[in-house]
Amino acid sequence: MLDRHHAMASHGATGNGGVVRPALSAEETAARRTLLDWARERRFTCAMDPIGNLFIRRPGSDDALAPVRIGSHLDSQMPGGNYDGVYGVLAAFEVLETIDDHGLVTKFPLEVVVWNNEEGCRFPPTTMGSAVHAGELSIDAALETTDVNGVSVRSALEASIRSLGKLQHIPLGTPTALYLEAHIEQGPVLEAGGLALGVVTDIQGVAQFRVTVKGELAHAGTTPKYLRKDALRYAMQLIDELSARVERYDDRVRFTVGSLRVFPDAVNTVPGEVSFTIDLRHPDRSVLKELCELIVKVSTAEDSQFVASVVQILDSPPVRFDSNIVSTIRQIASSMAESTDIISGATHDAKLLASTCPAGMIFIPCYRGISHNEDEYAEPSHMIVGADALLVSVLRFAAPSACDAAH
Amino acid sequence: MLDRHHAMASHGATGNGGVVRPALSAEETAARRTLLDWARERRFTCAMDPIGNLFIRRPGSDDALAPVRIGSHLDSQMPGGNYDGVYGVLAAFEVLETIDDHGLVTKFPLEVVVWNNEEGCRFPPTTMGSAVHAGELSIDAALETTDVNGVSVRSALEASIRSLGKLQHIPLGTPTALYLEAHIEQGPVLEAGGLALGVVTDIQGVAQFRVTVKGELAHAGTTPKYLRKDALRYAMQLIDELSARVERYDDRVRFTVGSLRVFPDAVNTVPGEVSFTIDLRHPDRSVLKELCELIVKVSTAEDSQFVASVVQILDSPPVRFDSNIVSTIRQIASSMAESTDIISGATHDAKLLASTCPAGMIFIPCYRGISHNEDEYAEPSHMIVGADALLVSVLRFAAPSACDAAH
Repeated sequence: MLDRHHAMASHGATGNGGVVRPALSAEETAARRTLLDWARERRFTCAMDPIGNLFIRRPGSDDALAPVRIGSHLDSQMPGGNYDGVYGVLAAFEVLETIDDHGLVTKFPLEVVVWNNEEGCRFPPTTMGSAVHAGELSIDAALETTDVNGVSVRSALEASIRSLGKLQHIPLGTPTALYLEAHIEQGPVLEAGGLALGVVTDIQGVAQFRVTVKGELAHAGTTPKYLRKDALRYAMQLIDELSARVERYDDRVRFTVGSLRVFPDAVNTVPGEVSFTIDLRHPDRSVLKELCELIVKVSTAEDSQFVASVVQILDSPPVRFDSNIVSTIRQIASSMAESTDIISGATHDAKLLASTCPAGMIFIPCYRGISHNEDEYAEPSHMIVGADALLVSVLRFAAPSACDAAH
Repeated sequence: MLDRHHAMASHGATGNGGVVRPALSAEETAARRTLLDWARERRFTCAMDPIGNLFIRRPGSDDALAPVRIGSHLDSQMPGGNYDGVYGVLAAFEVLETIDDHGLVTKFPLEVVVWNNEEGCRFPPTTMGSAVHAGELSIDAALETTDVNGVSVRSALEASIRSLGKLQHIPLGTPTALYLEAHIEQGPVLEAGGLALGVVTDIQGVAQFRVTVKGELAHAGTTPKYLRKDALRYAMQLIDELSARVERYDDRVRFTVGSLRVFPDAVNTVPGEVSFTIDLRHPDRSVLKELCELIVKVSTAEDSQFVASVVQILDSPPVRFDSNIVSTIRQIASSMAESTDIISGATHDAKLLASTCPAGMIFIPCYRGISHNEDEYAEPSHMIVGADALLVSVLRFAAPSACDAAH
């Protein structure tokens, strides 16, 4: 797994310790091809569904059963680190290989899944592949989504498929017996507590908005301040007011303006229009709803000078994982290392899967909680214990008798 | 001239009353071709210099003299209006045609000049063509400049030339006997005073900067506020502080942040880097210098969390036009309409020409002072009186005896 980690890190490497490997780029396709090469060496079955999720399968003794699925994603932020997503895929593949190495027979078929476009930074929204799989986003809407250059998911996916070699076709949304995902925490809690494993009980809710502010284009040299309707200056005021009002709720609120674009973006022109995004998170469903209402109310308050409009582009309420899975993972994790229950600050594909089957997640610490950053880092010892916990959990659920044998 | 105004407005028309016609685009090339067609019908000589400035010439009786030049530019902001630049070119062409219609012989040759890339919004900096002509910008640096898609001025110019038909070559920086330019005011002064003509005495100085702020990329969902180094929020603070400190000087200061870019510009990532531009103007040379020093000092002040760097990308001190030309235009303008002396808030090609020869400008009012905007508008009656004033001024300087005949 650690060797493979280095092989994967070469796909889209920036030279600064991270990668630029957005969904369906040549770099992400190369990472998928590398994984498929490893799978084909093992004679695992490789299949893709219509939205580009990859499924690598080892059969079960009762192969008609819905599979136990484990996985994550291979796409990155632009730029991103070498652990977000990749770790979960490689840990899952390690589990499949280890079971295969030992010739274990599981009752349930096992599948490693690579969800397409988890990051959503090239093609919004996030968790596109698992959302389409779970029926929460239509396949047509997903395929029509375009990146900033006007390239659609459909055409990028077709190009990616052409260079991946022969793949079986699997229909959209096939049932899952149980889903598990290993991931770096992407936050500071485990490291701060000196803990090696996190048992994820919940994923906080996320709402995303796009706010557009219209002022009036004007010449930078001739227009006195009192005649200006500067959309950027107004957007800045609005962001200040929104963040102040939202962040005063409690310290679990996460409020981020990650994207901001100025129109026409010319050095000698007073901006006529600005659009920016808001990413808002909270683990409590009712608080999140209240904050969303506040954002809409404040953004669209009447102003004599400016017109602002707001569109919600993501509404993903908090999720609580299956209590049976959480307690089983808690028991396994605590037998292996210092561990704790934890709420995930980030969204993951497991959140979407949780609406289709019992699901759970295992976290390992990462350096200073840094993620979506080239400096993202996880200790090899933590990567190993996380994969071990995933292996034992999979065996416990997929084939109880084999699990006893593996202990 | 008014008919030609409508013909020009079709090149790059947005459908909202304005145009998108950046320098050397297909649309601007089409506008140049239209002008050249009109010039060729008249058998005027058409030439281009190595930076893409166009010269349309009617010979003088003493044709070895340096020409009297009149003109402006055909490129627009993205989007821009139908008067900025175009009006000055069409008024100049109208002057040439009117003189030709009457069979007048001028002592000096007359040339209508279309300066390349005055706006600088596709290829920075502004007034590129006239700056290269005046020897204030090197031709090599100008030709190597690229737009956001990586297209260079050199290659865009070659493509433009191929579709313009046969043109004579004129060397760079040929001498000018005298330069005049008509332009919309792009500010509110003339309209507010009910005046039809402005006699431009000065052009205020401009300094432009690019400020880069570095924070730390982080995951929007997991990173608590106290661990964030959000480059956008810091850039916003810095812009607030800079504008407050600069604008308190006096009400003649113009401070604009026209372009701002966020890196990586992803909805779910705390921005790691932001770069923005500052356009700073003042008519007083010493005040402008002081304000520039303040911008550098405040931008690069030590901060424990963030690193900011600042680069000056334009330094264009104020210019005072030739007093003889100003007084002659003042006399002509006041004999035709209500007029006033005025300082130009915007930069113009005439500012660059003023370093090579006696130069002057004539302003006409525009609706609410709106410019760099699709709503830019000038009254036909003002366009006509402006062209008349330009005609009489040209005749006064280029051929005193013919001028008396035309009166």
